[in-house]
Amino acid sequence: MPMAPETPPPLLTPLSRLLGIRFPIIQGGMVWTAGAKLAVAVSEAGALGVLGAGSMKPDALRQAIRDVRTGTKAPFGVNIPLMREDRLELAAVCEDEGVGIVITSSGDPSMLTPRLKGTGCVVLHVIATVTHARKAAGAGCDAVIAEGCEAGGHNGVDEITTFTLVPQVVDAVHVPVVAAGGIADGRGMAAALALGASGVQVGTRFAATVESDAHAVYKQRVVDATDRDTVLTMRGLMPVRMLRTPFTLRAMEAERRGATRDELVTLLGRKRERMGIGEGDMDEGMFEAGQSAGLVHGILPAADVVRMMMDVYRITHQRMP
Amino acid sequence: MPMAPETPPPLLTPLSRLLGIRFPIIQGGMVWTAGAKLAVAVSEAGALGVLGAGSMKPDALRQAIRDVRTGTKAPFGVNIPLMREDRLELAAVCEDEGVGIVITSSGDPSMLTPRLKGTGCVVLHVIATVTHARKAAGAGCDAVIAEGCEAGGHNGVDEITTFTLVPQVVDAVHVPVVAAGGIADGRGMAAALALGASGVQVGTRFAATVESDAHAVYKQRVVDATDRDTVLTMRGLMPVRMLRTPFTLRAMEAERRGATRDELVTLLGRKRERMGIGEGDMDEGMFEAGQSAGLVHGILPAADVVRMMMDVYRITHQRMP
Repeated sequence: MPMAPETPPPLLTPLSRLLGIRFPIIQGGMVWTAGAKLAVAVSEAGALGVLGAGSMKPDALRQAIRDVRTGTKAPFGVNIPLMREDRLELAAVCEDEGVGIVITSSGDPSMLTPRLKGTGCVVLHVIATVTHARKAAGAGCDAVIAEGCEAGGHNGVDEITTFTLVPQVVDAVHVPVVAAGGIADGRGMAAALALGASGVQVGTRFAATVESDAHAVYKQRVVDATDRDTVLTMRGLMPVRMLRTPFTLRAMEAERRGATRDELVTLLGRKRERMGIGEGDMDEGMFEAGQSAGLVHGILPAADVVRMMMDVYRITHQRMP
Repeated sequence: MPMAPETPPPLLTPLSRLLGIRFPIIQGGMVWTAGAKLAVAVSEAGALGVLGAGSMKPDALRQAIRDVRTGTKAPFGVNIPLMREDRLELAAVCEDEGVGIVITSSGDPSMLTPRLKGTGCVVLHVIATVTHARKAAGAGCDAVIAEGCEAGGHNGVDEITTFTLVPQVVDAVHVPVVAAGGIADGRGMAAALALGASGVQVGTRFAATVESDAHAVYKQRVVDATDRDTVLTMRGLMPVRMLRTPFTLRAMEAERRGATRDELVTLLGRKRERMGIGEGDMDEGMFEAGQSAGLVHGILPAADVVRMMMDVYRITHQRMP
């Protein structure tokens, strides 16, 4: 009989202390993917599970928060995209339910941070440039998540990579820096910590787990992806990284012929994330994923992802010359 | 009186053994930048100095090789871009002069590798995808240089970042992998080795050294650059990463309006690299540089770059949790 795998010893960094977690790994709050099941599995494994409120109405978020609490006593977080019109209602739900950790993204960090901090919440903000990192730290965020352009989904317009963004942000702010974009295994985690990060946020690798809410067709496409299978497109509107699918090819073609912003708005339409990630519609949906998809070779339980990441981190660190 | 800085102890990896150097650092063979002065300074410092034959006629290359030999007994290399029409003449010069290390880029690795290997030369090839890494290893290259899209100058069309490219290439080939793109200090070197690389190739940081042949105006622009100051443009023709200059803005504008390949060829014209990097013409020239420009804060002697990189590498490794 195989022995039960041992839980790796904790890895303490300023980030793991700030969040009260064993391992400095944050699961990305991905739309149509990061529901209660995934958050419970990740938090139970000693990392930070996160609910992706970007694809939830306030009532659904409230239910998901309660479901997470039923499943685990460990810390968890909620990701609120600030471009959402109902961001205030989503924040109010977090306050009502006493959520301890909120991650904000895609907007002005001063919008919600003072209010959330006022209720004792720890607030992290996702940024893609040094300037925005400074703004987030200035707005009182407890940590910044520096996301490189290899990340899946919505991206900054400057297309700065994780390798160059993280050390520049580390040099610029005094709060802990979380590296995001391109990290799918313990080697990536070691590289991020070498660049000065205090932890990592991992999206695509967790999207292809057993507990992820994403559609089976989407998960399999992530597993099948090679290094060349994601593209950053819709640059003229709002850059998004996604897997090459029929819809992606149409978006790339529109971009190549110099489509206007209005044309891109029409092309984008609505609900493509849901159709793609949530419903597995390869022709009409958007399959958002990061370049790290090329490093994902199987659909695993989220706890195995966390444990393997920590095991490989330790081996990597020991083997470095 | 300040003490002379000590030379750091050697760092042995498969790459440093292959090349016979103390530190697994290769200086990029950048056009109008990487002449004999820079190669001598870098090789004398224990890393691998490289002549950039991309901006040299065969006779100039021959003279540069002899100048390097006058300046140092340490190993050095020559970079030959395979898109050059006179690549065979350049290779013949390397053979004549008994150059021990050649780095090829921008073309089919089977073009020169067998011939150069036949004369006992060590051959490395620059790649930007896993597929091309396999081809290079299959063509007999002794190592591959995996260059992410944060790198300055000519880029692959798939825009894969260093963070995700390097581990995938490490998993795919059995020869040593050199990480390139985004590396300007010892933190980047530690991150590259964590990702499984056997060494690093560093371009932009060496372009802004005392011994670099680049124009003073160019060097200062690299020093002044922030994280947001490079762009990858001319995607429809041949993607190039460069600093934001008046010419770059014209190229971006052409791209935005969907310029054809022919229009881009006309816009690009000729000699823009020389006008920019070599002559410091900000209006008409191309200022090729990588995103790591944001990590470059001063024009230093190349030996200081090497020593600081090794010192910071060791500190980084020791401090990793």
